[in-house]
Amino acid sequence: MDDSSHLNLAKKRKIMAKEIKNFINGEFVEHHEHLDSYNPGTGEVWAKVPDSGKNEVDLAVQAAKQAFPSWSALSPETRAQYMLKIADILESRLTEFAEVESKDQGKTVGFAKAVDIPRAVLNFRFFATAIQHKVNESSVQSKFGVVNYTVKNPIGVAGLISPWNLPLYLLTFKIAPCIGAGNTCICKPSEMTSATAAMLCEVLNEAGLPPGVVNVVFGYGHKVGQEIVDHPDIPVISFTGGTATGKKIMASAAANFKKLSLELGGKNAAIIFNDADLEQCIPTTVRSSFSNQGEVCLSTSRIFVQEDLYPKFLELFVDATRKLKVGPPPESTTNVGALISKEHLAKVKGYVKIAQEEGGKIECGEGSPDGNVPLPAAYQNGYYMKPTIITNLKDSSRCMQEEIFGPVTCVTPFKTEEEVIDRANGVQYGLCASVWTAALGVSHRVSQKLEVGTVWNNCWLVRDLNMPFGGMKASGLGRESGKESFDFFTEEKTICMKM
Amino acid sequence: MDDSSHLNLAKKRKIMAKEIKNFINGEFVEHHEHLDSYNPGTGEVWAKVPDSGKNEVDLAVQAAKQAFPSWSALSPETRAQYMLKIADILESRLTEFAEVESKDQGKTVGFAKAVDIPRAVLNFRFFATAIQHKVNESSVQSKFGVVNYTVKNPIGVAGLISPWNLPLYLLTFKIAPCIGAGNTCICKPSEMTSATAAMLCEVLNEAGLPPGVVNVVFGYGHKVGQEIVDHPDIPVISFTGGTATGKKIMASAAANFKKLSLELGGKNAAIIFNDADLEQCIPTTVRSSFSNQGEVCLSTSRIFVQEDLYPKFLELFVDATRKLKVGPPPESTTNVGALISKEHLAKVKGYVKIAQEEGGKIECGEGSPDGNVPLPAAYQNGYYMKPTIITNLKDSSRCMQEEIFGPVTCVTPFKTEEEVIDRANGVQYGLCASVWTAALGVSHRVSQKLEVGTVWNNCWLVRDLNMPFGGMKASGLGRESGKESFDFFTEEKTICMKM
Repeated sequence: MDDSSHLNLAKKRKIMAKEIKNFINGEFVEHHEHLDSYNPGTGEVWAKVPDSGKNEVDLAVQAAKQAFPSWSALSPETRAQYMLKIADILESRLTEFAEVESKDQGKTVGFAKAVDIPRAVLNFRFFATAIQHKVNESSVQSKFGVVNYTVKNPIGVAGLISPWNLPLYLLTFKIAPCIGAGNTCICKPSEMTSATAAMLCEVLNEAGLPPGVVNVVFGYGHKVGQEIVDHPDIPVISFTGGTATGKKIMASAAANFKKLSLELGGKNAAIIFNDADLEQCIPTTVRSSFSNQGEVCLSTSRIFVQEDLYPKFLELFVDATRKLKVGPPPESTTNVGALISKEHLAKVKGYVKIAQEEGGKIECGEGSPDGNVPLPAAYQNGYYMKPTIITNLKDSSRCMQEEIFGPVTCVTPFKTEEEVIDRANGVQYGLCASVWTAALGVSHRVSQKLEVGTVWNNCWLVRDLNMPFGGMKASGLGRESGKESFDFFTEEKTICMKM
Repeated sequence: MDDSSHLNLAKKRKIMAKEIKNFINGEFVEHHEHLDSYNPGTGEVWAKVPDSGKNEVDLAVQAAKQAFPSWSALSPETRAQYMLKIADILESRLTEFAEVESKDQGKTVGFAKAVDIPRAVLNFRFFATAIQHKVNESSVQSKFGVVNYTVKNPIGVAGLISPWNLPLYLLTFKIAPCIGAGNTCICKPSEMTSATAAMLCEVLNEAGLPPGVVNVVFGYGHKVGQEIVDHPDIPVISFTGGTATGKKIMASAAANFKKLSLELGGKNAAIIFNDADLEQCIPTTVRSSFSNQGEVCLSTSRIFVQEDLYPKFLELFVDATRKLKVGPPPESTTNVGALISKEHLAKVKGYVKIAQEEGGKIECGEGSPDGNVPLPAAYQNGYYMKPTIITNLKDSSRCMQEEIFGPVTCVTPFKTEEEVIDRANGVQYGLCASVWTAALGVSHRVSQKLEVGTVWNNCWLVRDLNMPFGGMKASGLGRESGKESFDFFTEEKTICMKM
């Protein structure tokens, strides 16, 4: 094959790539400038994503503003009917959505089938039922002859900015409470993972959702995202993503006092005491470290093991991790798929180098003799790396302090309860943690002293959507849940009546 | 008296001025640089306020950090005992505090006695009881064999920045829930009204509050306030004050993702329908417009009157307003005291000039033949102006759009319910409103459609501290109440236990 046929093939591939369109006022709109979206499994361009900007955001805001009065005037029961229909259609296309999510993001089809898409379905069903059961407060002050009651009104047009790691899962966790509460919205998925959001728009139309209630504008964060954050007609912004971007958003949002929910990074600890049940602890900690290639804000990346247990834990943990199969995302035997991008893979691998420079010992994975990933020909340009365990790092080392967001976890021994609480809290982040012990007192005491939004004891990622979820410190602002998300997407008002 | 004796007198007055000291770690600390604080009633310097900066804030943060572990470890019942004792001592010195508040701020002694100081007492009593009755949530998910529960932990060192219009009232509305929830704090009162905050510190010591729980650093907003907002060890900021300052605080706070409560300006409407009970409406609207010289964020400054009632309302409203006596704050017959400062008086009077340029008609007060304020000799340099009513302004005029924060209110006719809702909502602010009608449907419908945090129907300023209070749009972020203030001053955590 000479150079020109290479070029032709590249052109052909570009043309064959799925062309995604913005979704504004219930219609898919042609767009002329596109950016390339890669299939992380193969390294090939597989989708063309609109490279949108101010014009498209303005049009979407206009549509959302127009849709707001009638959408917000519907009863919660009626809005719930739309949402349940969306959930049903989404569920009927579960496999197709999972396959696209895998191709777009690099995660295994198995993970997308088991986690991403079912959770997107659940998000619509959960909030569809939740919004029908809100009761406000009231008080009578007979001394003043008044009765007070509160109402929670939808705010208007919301900006929903979601990340690339759990694309449909996290986008729908914003859309569902937002429109359930009676708002309309402009969504911006990550430019790297736009495909399932576009498919969701088809579902919204099929479910008969009125035009303009949900609008999706695709493109870069610094263009579309910034326009949303700066737009004077968008009074409320929900963002999930990196801490650095969250900081910029909060500073920009000050100009209009926008209500903000920020779900940002983590550097989550697992704390494993001598009496931990290893039969539960090992597989769960492998999962909490390496699920979705470690690209989950809730991933465990610092594992503190009490000293008597340390050697045994490490041995079993490394053994179990070595058994994970890295490979093509569609294959059912694959445990770990591809990382999101070439750049991100280089960054994550860079952290392993930093760890080595800092005196860290690579127990398995990248940078060790077994670090190579054998792959079938079609996948050899994908962004793969082996799950990597590092020991012998100081708490102050960069790999123990910074969010890596890849399949890298650090293990370190500890002696006492007091020591491990201090060390676990010794990072800028405060998202979640897990604690492993059979001792009742230890379990509750440690949980209550950890500076995080969620603590799992002898488990990980078990979620009741009614319970508050979110981070503290540099992990964010605000909580999400049946109640908290509803509160976020409404403005509360006290009405006082002289009787 | 020649020039030199003038100078001597000025010097003597300066020396005689009350010298306020910073309160750090339970001790009053000498400070060498001071700023002048004026008695608005006489125009004389009456207090010397520490002109503090970074050093003092650092010391206070250090004290507050040191006090935090033991203070937060106390039971709510024990913290409540301190707070109730503070309330009792404050109440026993009510008259003294009211007289100082009046001298410091310009408000009448009568108002301070009836409103400011009793409310400061109530703030401590209300939150002392509230914190003893918090129950968190839990859920069992038998499917996963887990039980979830939530805890709300104090955050650490809080920054409390309060305004000059209700100095002790609004400062204690922050301190009480803050320390009640187990936090410690650095307070910064307005540099113009620091006296009662300093007296409160004596009360705290008398009540035996542990050193470092409450620290007060006096000085300017751009120095002390900015240091508090920027300090990396202060993760939570409660601010009441101007919208422009609130904007700066939010932008600065982004650097550390500080939790923020912002209670900012208002441009509050009274909406008076044809069927309003004028016997109630006239005196209450006079009060809502001119209480505390109109220097209350909840003051009414736009009065919409339905057209049939308009002539009669205006006549009665102007008559009743003319009866208000402007004069020396200590005199029991005075209704309206002095404005906070020479500069603020000039600014408020400037708005009346602007109104005249915009075609407004001055019905009474400043800029009308009866605008002069006759005063005894000792008060002739004070900052007085007559309550002023303006008509004939367009909704777009500056006096109908901007917060004046003085004894100026605008009256305008309207025709229909729909029209007046649109016009009332047609400002950047969204703090409160009042609605006057006997019609049940109108009352609730209009209340629910107003874009504000609080609506009073046929009354004004009736407050159940358990009900949410706060603003939307440019009036702020967050709500305060027994529940909301407690939520603000804690971080909520979900703890999930595998059974």
